[in-house]
Amino acid sequence: MSQKNKQILLASRPTEWVEENHFNLNETFIPDPGEGQVLIKVRWLSLDPYMRGRMNEKSYGETVAVGGVMSGGTVGEIVASKHAKFKSGDIVLGYQGWQEYALSDGSGLMKIPPLGIPEQAYLGVVGMPGITAWYGLLRIGNPQPGETVVVSAASGAVGSVVGQLARIKGCRAVGIAGGKVKCDYVVNELGFDACIDYKQPNFYEQLKATTPKGIDIDFENAGGAILDAVMKRLNTGARIALCGLIAGYNGQPVPINNPFALLASRARLQGFIISDHTDQWPEAMKELGGYVATGKIKYRESIAEGIANAPKAFIGMLKGENFGKQLVKVA
Amino acid sequence: MSQKNKQILLASRPTEWVEENHFNLNETFIPDPGEGQVLIKVRWLSLDPYMRGRMNEKSYGETVAVGGVMSGGTVGEIVASKHAKFKSGDIVLGYQGWQEYALSDGSGLMKIPPLGIPEQAYLGVVGMPGITAWYGLLRIGNPQPGETVVVSAASGAVGSVVGQLARIKGCRAVGIAGGKVKCDYVVNELGFDACIDYKQPNFYEQLKATTPKGIDIDFENAGGAILDAVMKRLNTGARIALCGLIAGYNGQPVPINNPFALLASRARLQGFIISDHTDQWPEAMKELGGYVATGKIKYRESIAEGIANAPKAFIGMLKGENFGKQLVKVA
Repeated sequence: MSQKNKQILLASRPTEWVEENHFNLNETFIPDPGEGQVLIKVRWLSLDPYMRGRMNEKSYGETVAVGGVMSGGTVGEIVASKHAKFKSGDIVLGYQGWQEYALSDGSGLMKIPPLGIPEQAYLGVVGMPGITAWYGLLRIGNPQPGETVVVSAASGAVGSVVGQLARIKGCRAVGIAGGKVKCDYVVNELGFDACIDYKQPNFYEQLKATTPKGIDIDFENAGGAILDAVMKRLNTGARIALCGLIAGYNGQPVPINNPFALLASRARLQGFIISDHTDQWPEAMKELGGYVATGKIKYRESIAEGIANAPKAFIGMLKGENFGKQLVKVA
Repeated sequence: MSQKNKQILLASRPTEWVEENHFNLNETFIPDPGEGQVLIKVRWLSLDPYMRGRMNEKSYGETVAVGGVMSGGTVGEIVASKHAKFKSGDIVLGYQGWQEYALSDGSGLMKIPPLGIPEQAYLGVVGMPGITAWYGLLRIGNPQPGETVVVSAASGAVGSVVGQLARIKGCRAVGIAGGKVKCDYVVNELGFDACIDYKQPNFYEQLKATTPKGIDIDFENAGGAILDAVMKRLNTGARIALCGLIAGYNGQPVPINNPFALLASRARLQGFIISDHTDQWPEAMKELGGYVATGKIKYRESIAEGIANAPKAFIGMLKGENFGKQLVKVA
């Protein structure tokens, strides 16, 4: 065991694209737990697009202070405990951030339930991204058999679950992703009905061709030109689960250019943030865990090795270079 | 009684602003009702912003053919009947369009209920515009006491009812209108808590000052810069009832420039068209009629005289020159 705790700190706030020099690798001593505390050795760190917002001075959710440890979801092992509810060896889901060790008073910690799936799945397909997909599609989208569901960032941790859940619910699932490799994966391995490469010049023509009955539900991760194209195909009574606007995370403007389509289709657009809905996590985890254990939902992971590589992996993810759920194997 | 039926036809489709030469005054003979038909003498014609969309080749709702009679809501008197359910002298609400006389087979006709209010109120405060306000505010906005409601086009037929209903439901009502005269009316006569002139350069500062607790419900009639400003003030869980986008009715683009605000505030935006919700009209008319009869909801009318003046009055309304509900007194 290293005698130091390596951490990634926010060195400065990016105004546009994130660069590695916005982060700082720091080494501190490993702390001892006080009364009512546990020491957690982080095994897996989740990297997610929402973290870009945490680097700003103001955003929704709590932002990271300059000089502070980058925040993030983790799976870790309790290696020392002075807390009645936890003992050494417990594997816990929590928000220990971009570091190798962290103290916790137990708040926000959850012992991983025994669903017979890999522990890091609780950061992905059965964790925050999977539950985001579950909530947005089922609770906001309310999919009905035979409807058409479109999801952007379709090969990502959220999008891949949206499309597979849509299929399970009897819908037509059409993904949007960047590049042929991702699109092939979405169709051939995940079983979407179709996937369109938004980098192709005939993107809109393909969207039209693959949504012959229009679009009933849009699970929106991208915004910008992708959302504008989707909005041209909305059916009457369409629902848009607004989960993210990756296109605008680095400072570019991402207007909705034709809001009239929302009026003409009587669409409902609902912005949501999954941390508002923690009451629904147990139900979602149970349903998703079941699908994963029986192979009805598949997933892929991009794994970076070591906390020092987290910034590079994060930047790659924002640029779309990852494939599936982006993780850091910390220990 | 004139021996001719004067009608306003759509002469050509406008691409941007509507001009009088897009209309044509036509005279035809007054038809006789066939079996199962009634002849209606139109007394009042309603002019509404949605009619601009009807002049396009494609829009939501049925568009008007070039050479066809402009469509619109009317109050009329049945002057000849071969229909079992209607007799001469009945006053009916319907969609007889921009003309002095029309045949009807009774579909879409409603005898005006006896609520003790003027018959033309069924085209305004107790009719389509008032019900639009009622549905959007109550069914989409779901106002709670103490919340802040903002409404654009606040002195208009819809907006004026939105703000007064908001006050009745215990909310703070802030209007947005064009010019001091309209704003004074909205505050002094209709009892809104505040009204802001969007033509003033310090519009956003005023919006901020008059919504100190942020905005919980936006009843959107305008779009464009007004909606962009409102979106900066949305509270968490805000609702936007998207009723109209007047700013874009003449071909100008009206992007939503910062959709990220919808995500950050977890807002729900719902486009709606009141003709989808005819099942709710009786309840809405009863509630609104009660408020009007007891003076809790006030209204104002702009009345043009004679069907020949309908185009001019319609163009003026699109430019914001009218004051309150725009009507044409046809006979």
